[in-house]
Amino acid sequence: MLMPLPRPLNLPQRMLMGPGPSDVDPRVLQAMATPMIGHLDPAFLAVADEVKVMLQQVFRTRNELTFPVSAPGSAGMETCLVNLLEPGDEALVCVHGVFGNRMADIVQRCGARLIRLDSPWGGPTGRDKVREALRTSRPKLVAIVHAETSTGVWQPLEEIGELAHEAGALFVVDAVTSLGGVDVRVDDWGIDAIYSGTQKCLSAPPGLSPISFSPRAVEVLTRRKAKVQSWFLDLNMVRNYWGQERFYHHTAPISSIFALHEALRLVLAEGLENRFERHRRNHERLRTGLEGLGFRFIVAPAYRLPQLNAVQIPPGLDDKTTRRRLLEEYNIEIGGGLGEFAGKVWRIGLMGCSCTERHVDALLGAFRELLGR
Amino acid sequence: MLMPLPRPLNLPQRMLMGPGPSDVDPRVLQAMATPMIGHLDPAFLAVADEVKVMLQQVFRTRNELTFPVSAPGSAGMETCLVNLLEPGDEALVCVHGVFGNRMADIVQRCGARLIRLDSPWGGPTGRDKVREALRTSRPKLVAIVHAETSTGVWQPLEEIGELAHEAGALFVVDAVTSLGGVDVRVDDWGIDAIYSGTQKCLSAPPGLSPISFSPRAVEVLTRRKAKVQSWFLDLNMVRNYWGQERFYHHTAPISSIFALHEALRLVLAEGLENRFERHRRNHERLRTGLEGLGFRFIVAPAYRLPQLNAVQIPPGLDDKTTRRRLLEEYNIEIGGGLGEFAGKVWRIGLMGCSCTERHVDALLGAFRELLGR
Repeated sequence: MLMPLPRPLNLPQRMLMGPGPSDVDPRVLQAMATPMIGHLDPAFLAVADEVKVMLQQVFRTRNELTFPVSAPGSAGMETCLVNLLEPGDEALVCVHGVFGNRMADIVQRCGARLIRLDSPWGGPTGRDKVREALRTSRPKLVAIVHAETSTGVWQPLEEIGELAHEAGALFVVDAVTSLGGVDVRVDDWGIDAIYSGTQKCLSAPPGLSPISFSPRAVEVLTRRKAKVQSWFLDLNMVRNYWGQERFYHHTAPISSIFALHEALRLVLAEGLENRFERHRRNHERLRTGLEGLGFRFIVAPAYRLPQLNAVQIPPGLDDKTTRRRLLEEYNIEIGGGLGEFAGKVWRIGLMGCSCTERHVDALLGAFRELLGR
Repeated sequence: MLMPLPRPLNLPQRMLMGPGPSDVDPRVLQAMATPMIGHLDPAFLAVADEVKVMLQQVFRTRNELTFPVSAPGSAGMETCLVNLLEPGDEALVCVHGVFGNRMADIVQRCGARLIRLDSPWGGPTGRDKVREALRTSRPKLVAIVHAETSTGVWQPLEEIGELAHEAGALFVVDAVTSLGGVDVRVDDWGIDAIYSGTQKCLSAPPGLSPISFSPRAVEVLTRRKAKVQSWFLDLNMVRNYWGQERFYHHTAPISSIFALHEALRLVLAEGLENRFERHRRNHERLRTGLEGLGFRFIVAPAYRLPQLNAVQIPPGLDDKTTRRRLLEEYNIEIGGGLGEFAGKVWRIGLMGCSCTERHVDALLGAFRELLGR
C-alpha cells in the first residue's frame, strides 16, 4: 500500500489521428477548467439549455428530447436500446462491424429477440438485404451504424429509414463517429433515436453522449409497460432533469457540459457545411498521399468516411512497431484494427480539430521516413 | 432553429456549500484542461494506474478491482447492483433516505427480490433491525448508505457488515458522500462492493464513480449464470479494460481521470486523518455558529456527518427566497430538502475544498444579515 505520492501530470503532446479521441481546441480545454458551479444553479441551467439548442442544430432536428447523456457513447447506445425495448420485443440490427455487433449484444441483454443482419466488414448494409429481412419479420426497431468506426464505412441511411418506417419500426442510428464530420439529418431522414459521442468529430473530451429522440420514440417510451432496466439511463426520469422541470435525477458531468458548450459553439461558428467540406478536403489530401506511398483503402470510394480512413497495413511495416514509433518518435497516434481487422488494418482519423493539413502532412511525412522513401 | 450563436461561457464564481458538487481546487481544474491524449496511450495508462493505486489508498483496500466507473455516482450504484444480482436473487436494502430508496429501486430493476428495511429519515438503520431481518431471510447481499446525502446521517458500518457476513451475504456500501470526508475502511470493515462519487469530499468535477470490489464479490461476478443486464457497466468486460490487458471496451472520460488524479494527489498529500480532522473542525465551527443563530440540526449528534449538515429551515426564512438570495447576493449555494424533507430542511455541505473556515464564516455572515441580527 505504501507508495510515494505520484507526481503532477506531465504528459506528451500528441497529434490524435486514431479512431478517437480527437485533438481538442484550447478554447474547449479552457471551458473544461471553468470553476465549478452547481448542476441546478440557474447559471448552469442556462448553459445546459444552450447546449440543447446547439445539439438540435447539429443533429438538424426539432426533437424536444435532445441532450447529452452523462456518460460516453456506449452509454448513449445503451440508452437508446434499453428505453425503446421491452422483454419480448423484436429488434433488427444491421451488423457490418464492431459497433453493430455491440448493438446486437445490448438488444439481447434487454431481453428482446434479436434479428441479426450480418454483412461483410468493409462495406455497408445493403438496402435489399434489409427489405428482405423485413418481409419475414415485424421488428419494433431497426438499428444501424452510420459511421462504422471499426471499418471506416459510411452507411447510406435514408433508404434504410424508409424501409424501417414502411415496416412500422422505429429507426435507430449510431452517429458516434459521424456527427460533426459528415451530414446527419435526424428529421429529414426519419431517425427516431440517435446517439453520438463528444470525442470524435465534435472534438470535445470523451464522457458525454448526445442523443435525440423523435416524438414517435418518446411516445413508445411513455407507453412502456415494464420499467426501463437501467435506473441511470431511464429517460422517463432523465428527461425531467433535462426538461423544464429540472427534477433532480443524478449530477450531470458539469465540466464536460461546459466543454461541449464551447465545442458546439466552434462547430456552429465554422458552419456545418464548411466543416463537412474541410473533412472531405483533408481526406482527399490524405488519400492522395497514402496511395502515393502504396497504401490501399479497405472501403470502396462510394462508402468511404472522410474522417475515418481504414487502410491495409502495407508490406514492410509491422503493425505494433510502426504504431509505437509513430507515437514515440512523432507523437502521432493512429488506430490499430479491431476484431477481424486486428493486425491487418490501420484506422487513421481526421476528426474535428484533428482534421487539418498540418495533421495530414505530418503523418505522411512520418510514413515516408518510416518507409525509407 | 435559427438562433444567434451563444456567447462563450461567463459564469459567476460560487461557494459551493450544497450536497455537491463541491468547490474544485484550481490545480484540479488545470488538470482537467490537460491537452487530450488517447485512452490506450501508454502515457494515459500510467496515469490510470496511479489513479487506481491512489483510490486503493483512499478506500483503504488491497482490492485489485478498484477504479473509477466512467459515469457519475448513480452509475456506480447501478454497477455494484447489476453485477452482483441476477434475476431471482434476494437483496436486503436498508432505506433511511433518498439514496437507500434508489438502491431499492435498482434492485427491482435487476429482477431481484427486494427485502426493504425502512427506518425513519434523520436517523441510521439500527443493528437490531438488520439482525431481525436476517433471521427470516437469506439475501445474497445487504446494501446500505454510509453517508445519506438526503438527511446528513452517518451510518455505522462495521456492525452491519458483520451481520451481513454471518448471514452469508455480500456487504454493499454507498460511500458517495463519505469518501474523503470521513473514514472509509473497505478491508477492515469487510465491504464487498463500494461506490463513491468524485464531486463530493474528493472535490473533483462530477462524472466518475470510484468503485471497489472484494475478491469475494469478484468471485460472484465471475460465476454469474446470466449476462449482466448492462453492457456499459458489465465488470466482466470493464475490468479487462482497467486491468493489465487494457482490452478496449469504451472510451474512458480522459480529462475527468486527469482531474481525479490531481484531486487524489491533493487528498493524499493532505493525509486522510488530517482531512477528516479538518472536516470535523469546520463542522464544529459551523454547528456553533448555526446554533447561535437558532438553527436546529435534524440528526442526533452521534450520527451527524461533518460534511453534510441537515438543519430545519428556521422560522422567519422562506426556503426558496433565502436560497435564491444566498446564491444571487452572496454567491453561496446551499441545498434544499429532498423527498419528505423538501421545503423543511436545508442541507449545508462542507465537502473537500468547500470545507474551510472561510466558507463557514461567509455562510454564517450571510445568515446573520438575512436574519437581521
